[in-house]
Amino acid sequence: MCQSVFHNRPDVKVTFSLINRSSQVPLARLIDEGELREQLDHIRSLSLTRGESTWLRGNTFYGKRQMFRPDFMEWFENLQLPPYFLERVGDQYELTFEGSWPEVMLWEIPALAVLMELRSRAVLDDMKRFELQVLYARAATKLWEKVERLREVPGLRIADFGTRRRHSFLWQDWCVQAMVEGLGAGFTGTSNCLIAKNRDLEAIGTNAHELPMVYAALAEDDETLARAPYDVLADWHEEHEGNLRIILPDTYGTEGFLEHAPDWLAGWTGIRIDSGDPVRGAENAIAWWKARGEDPMQKLVIFSDGLDEDKILELYEMFHRRVRVSFGWGTLLTNDFRGLAPDDALAPFSLVCKAVSANGRPTVKLSDNPNKAMGPADEIARYKRVFHVGKQERREVVV
Amino acid sequence: MCQSVFHNRPDVKVTFSLINRSSQVPLARLIDEGELREQLDHIRSLSLTRGESTWLRGNTFYGKRQMFRPDFMEWFENLQLPPYFLERVGDQYELTFEGSWPEVMLWEIPALAVLMELRSRAVLDDMKRFELQVLYARAATKLWEKVERLREVPGLRIADFGTRRRHSFLWQDWCVQAMVEGLGAGFTGTSNCLIAKNRDLEAIGTNAHELPMVYAALAEDDETLARAPYDVLADWHEEHEGNLRIILPDTYGTEGFLEHAPDWLAGWTGIRIDSGDPVRGAENAIAWWKARGEDPMQKLVIFSDGLDEDKILELYEMFHRRVRVSFGWGTLLTNDFRGLAPDDALAPFSLVCKAVSANGRPTVKLSDNPNKAMGPADEIARYKRVFHVGKQERREVVV
Repeated sequence: MCQSVFHNRPDVKVTFSLINRSSQVPLARLIDEGELREQLDHIRSLSLTRGESTWLRGNTFYGKRQMFRPDFMEWFENLQLPPYFLERVGDQYELTFEGSWPEVMLWEIPALAVLMELRSRAVLDDMKRFELQVLYARAATKLWEKVERLREVPGLRIADFGTRRRHSFLWQDWCVQAMVEGLGAGFTGTSNCLIAKNRDLEAIGTNAHELPMVYAALAEDDETLARAPYDVLADWHEEHEGNLRIILPDTYGTEGFLEHAPDWLAGWTGIRIDSGDPVRGAENAIAWWKARGEDPMQKLVIFSDGLDEDKILELYEMFHRRVRVSFGWGTLLTNDFRGLAPDDALAPFSLVCKAVSANGRPTVKLSDNPNKAMGPADEIARYKRVFHVGKQERREVVV
Repeated sequence: MCQSVFHNRPDVKVTFSLINRSSQVPLARLIDEGELREQLDHIRSLSLTRGESTWLRGNTFYGKRQMFRPDFMEWFENLQLPPYFLERVGDQYELTFEGSWPEVMLWEIPALAVLMELRSRAVLDDMKRFELQVLYARAATKLWEKVERLREVPGLRIADFGTRRRHSFLWQDWCVQAMVEGLGAGFTGTSNCLIAKNRDLEAIGTNAHELPMVYAALAEDDETLARAPYDVLADWHEEHEGNLRIILPDTYGTEGFLEHAPDWLAGWTGIRIDSGDPVRGAENAIAWWKARGEDPMQKLVIFSDGLDEDKILELYEMFHRRVRVSFGWGTLLTNDFRGLAPDDALAPFSLVCKAVSANGRPTVKLSDNPNKAMGPADEIARYKRVFHVGKQERREVVV
């Protein structure tokens, strides 16, 4: 995704901002500001190691060698992440990043992962040695019981999408290894490149909402705005093929997006369903493919919204005879400490880091769930009009 | 106990024998004979290290420094355990030890611990890495949940008696440390001297059935036999005071033992209840002390038979206002892997190693539970007559 931005919109200035959708979690009371600054400063001191660079240049991703072009790799190797702006406001932190898009976008994952892990550590700090051991024993058992249920279903395919909101790095690494042992070929890889490299796994990924959000914010008029979600995929189409051609249709409402989509998009490999009712999302995708003369059995639906093993099993059972199905399992894979600490102090929560403006203009996300929407009210109203979004069903956002 | 035997009956020749009371566990199919021999040979190669010897000589046990006399320590330092006799018979092992009593008696604990641990390892051998991790995670959680329940009760006092039937050495060590962190002063120590030494804990212990069993076997006539259980405690009385003066009354039936006991025994600190209905056992003890003019509130009842946290909490609740109460928690502290492996292959079982003869005469144990009785039928009948043992209630022996 970064390479795509680097080639197509390198000069766009963006602002990314931390958004704690779980305002009941008082991040600034839990995490010491000095410690947070230390971590963020440390992230700015990092650059690719020689081994990491060699791996990115030489490894096969999605069956393709040299996915990353030399000009991109050279830029990446010399990259230092831009400055951050941190301020405590009440019990929350305001944390923003400004600069050119390809640079700033790389802050999202480490910033979130650091905040999540510092919060975990703050809670762990008060625990004694055996309490700690048993905490991890319980978390391990909990994950393994999920794995034991999932591995009963042959054909299930699941990837790790849990980097940004993981409990901690070591815990994510453990979860990934448990998935490898438990699911074998049913575990299709991880979006954490370091773990993929260290554990010799497939590094996998897809495109995210920030692409259409920034393209849309840059649109000069309503007509360009209406075209923006397709323009971004046209650029993507130039760069990627096969299993990387996955539509993320919900940024401004899935139904309108599919209805107005150009025919070449129906030729893409699949659709990722990341908000709203997943059953309805998959039904819409199947109906759309049929309407465009495509065979759904040749198509891939990737579910990735707030998954846990029950939902995975239910969705697989419902759809695997009608379409190819895959799962991007995130927070409840790498951070399911629900119920394991007093006051549920380690439960995961909905922390995101989003592009909030591009070249000075606010971004907007509507999503298929109003609780995930973001942007100024007047812009939301405008986008709803432009994208023909009607009444939406509100769904609770847990993670 | 060994020092007592060393001073009082050093020349008695005894035979100790392995008895698997859980004959459904096919030990010889589970444990490789070569591996077992290797371990038993290794035990024979062991002697006290200098540090262990220094600790035994210099440490305080039950508030007493130099509990072990120099002649005993010198003998102990030069001890090599006598040979063992091992034969596979069907799916079980016959394992016996012969020689002088103070030497042979030291085989019991390592022989049992090795058999238990080899059985654990045999089951673990078939498990993969994450299965193993989760197995131990579950076992740790299980123990910790017991600790969490027990620590809710202030005043509860529990010691580790779980060496001989532990899952493994490292696991026992972990359990002991969990008890230390979880129960604090409520954890009164361990009967495993090595762990006590390494972890700076109280080494605790008491006397066992083998003392009256061997004394009784040596009795030339019924009159001497009837006196044997008291003779052995008279010898013990000479050597030990305070909290080491604990009566184990059930070898030939608790009720008869107490009824015919000499008055000086009522002056002892406490009674250990190791078979039969523990409530009845404690009630008998309390009634006996009262009948002998003693104040039960000054006396100690130690429960040690097949305890788990439910039984501990129940017995504590019933008796702690009427007598001092303590618990010797064994197998279900250090080996509660029930329900954690396929086919319950790691569940603890009732393996013992007992004195079966002394100077060529068979030993007998009646116990307060006929399922724990042992000895030739005619000798059992004779002992029942001599000790006035009537009808006994059968209770299932789990561990």
